[in-house]
Amino acid sequence: MCAPAVIAAVREEWSRRRFLGTLGAATVAPAMVPIEAGSQPAPVRLPNGFRQIFDLTHTLSPKTPVVPSFKPMRYVPLFTIPKDGFQCGEITLNEHTGTHMDAPVHFVDGAVTVDRIPVDHFFAPLVVISIVDRVRKSPDTAVTPEDIQAWERRHGRIPAGAFVAMHSGWDARIGDGESFLNRDVKGTSHTPGFSGDAAAFLTKERDIVGVGVDTLSLDLGTSMGAPAHLGFLGAGKYGIEVIANLSAVPPAGATVIVGGPKHLAGTGGPVRLFAVA
Amino acid sequence: MCAPAVIAAVREEWSRRRFLGTLGAATVAPAMVPIEAGSQPAPVRLPNGFRQIFDLTHTLSPKTPVVPSFKPMRYVPLFTIPKDGFQCGEITLNEHTGTHMDAPVHFVDGAVTVDRIPVDHFFAPLVVISIVDRVRKSPDTAVTPEDIQAWERRHGRIPAGAFVAMHSGWDARIGDGESFLNRDVKGTSHTPGFSGDAAAFLTKERDIVGVGVDTLSLDLGTSMGAPAHLGFLGAGKYGIEVIANLSAVPPAGATVIVGGPKHLAGTGGPVRLFAVA
Repeated sequence: MCAPAVIAAVREEWSRRRFLGTLGAATVAPAMVPIEAGSQPAPVRLPNGFRQIFDLTHTLSPKTPVVPSFKPMRYVPLFTIPKDGFQCGEITLNEHTGTHMDAPVHFVDGAVTVDRIPVDHFFAPLVVISIVDRVRKSPDTAVTPEDIQAWERRHGRIPAGAFVAMHSGWDARIGDGESFLNRDVKGTSHTPGFSGDAAAFLTKERDIVGVGVDTLSLDLGTSMGAPAHLGFLGAGKYGIEVIANLSAVPPAGATVIVGGPKHLAGTGGPVRLFAVA
Repeated sequence: MCAPAVIAAVREEWSRRRFLGTLGAATVAPAMVPIEAGSQPAPVRLPNGFRQIFDLTHTLSPKTPVVPSFKPMRYVPLFTIPKDGFQCGEITLNEHTGTHMDAPVHFVDGAVTVDRIPVDHFFAPLVVISIVDRVRKSPDTAVTPEDIQAWERRHGRIPAGAFVAMHSGWDARIGDGESFLNRDVKGTSHTPGFSGDAAAFLTKERDIVGVGVDTLSLDLGTSMGAPAHLGFLGAGKYGIEVIANLSAVPPAGATVIVGGPKHLAGTGGPVRLFAVA
């Protein structure tokens, strides 16, 4: 991307500026031709036996809706190319922001933290249970054991070590925080989730590693208590919330890959979530 | 994991407390048996055709070494189970902390940001080039085109769309920040990296998507300028720094999976990095 003259100018500049104080020498940003950003179609072609990949991750920004008692993520630019030769900034966010993980410790003191979840739990058969049709009629509807059994009648028993995701169509609202939270005049969110009975069924009658939703909570917004959070996290399963793009993924047969956070003793954190099929 | 009596106590508690103000009701954490944390052996057995997975990610903490002009990551607990029914906190970090990505825009204004890297670039044939033996003699040594050609004589030409990683053995120092930075009395770091010639060779003579190092910088600590950063990022390739566990991965034949950050217009960010073989 650099013309030879640009490179020569950069090499001269290197002798005059320092990079990062103690890590080599710096440069002024050369006037390069901007690199065209790659588009991000899903699915795309992949090497090494992968056929399709789906990016199930929302782009995170200060506008990403968060739980009302949390602050949105912030970004502060700290270094600039004209001054420092490189640019970067500082991110501040609640662990439970954007497409993110709930580790068991989020609700259960002493339970597993993000850095201690076995990595084989991050590669799992993906089960997608759609309740899109019901949600169109009312958002106050939950994934039930009957929904799970209906999925099994079509696709067979949930595979061992599965990740079970609720697809409610809610990800389409991500650009509008009020619509995503969907609060009534009392401040109660009307958003779908897993029922406590579904959590009991999946953790006791089936063998799963984790669950996910395209809303902000594993639980119904209107549920009393947090039966899904407590049911799943209490059984040592992890949750992933604010999932994107589940409408594109086959309901059975894909594998989810969880690029989970790994900070010490974390209760959760942003996730890069893929499905491959 | 819950005794029936505990569950009954929890259900009663649900009727008395609110969870997150507007997102359902809360609970006091029941006195559950702590869930045993999973161990994290590498490799492990995987479903769906994966045979082995390697976690190439360091655990991030306030003690993780950073570039001296950056602040270490911070964690502030904000919610607690006794008070709120759940626990979580706020993370603050420079984008270039821990096992992390450098997007092209980190050094090139207008270039690709983390959220716009095509997802198929996150699944790539992994090439591991070891310079461990040379680094034992002196840390001021770089991956050169000759090292890459030596790898090709043993393993064949670098596959199209590859991710090329320097394995210097530096990850063993992560627990000791001074040893990881390895600064002399003048403050210059003595750490291995890619040479500018290697960057030119890989970006012009081969077809790669990205590069990685187990040190804090793609460049040699002693290099004048940032020829590796500018060579790779200037050609639109992404970098990953502070990689863990490369000694466990086969030098050829594995696939890297990059759980990259996805915040709007980011210059980099923490990555969950896996290899599968």
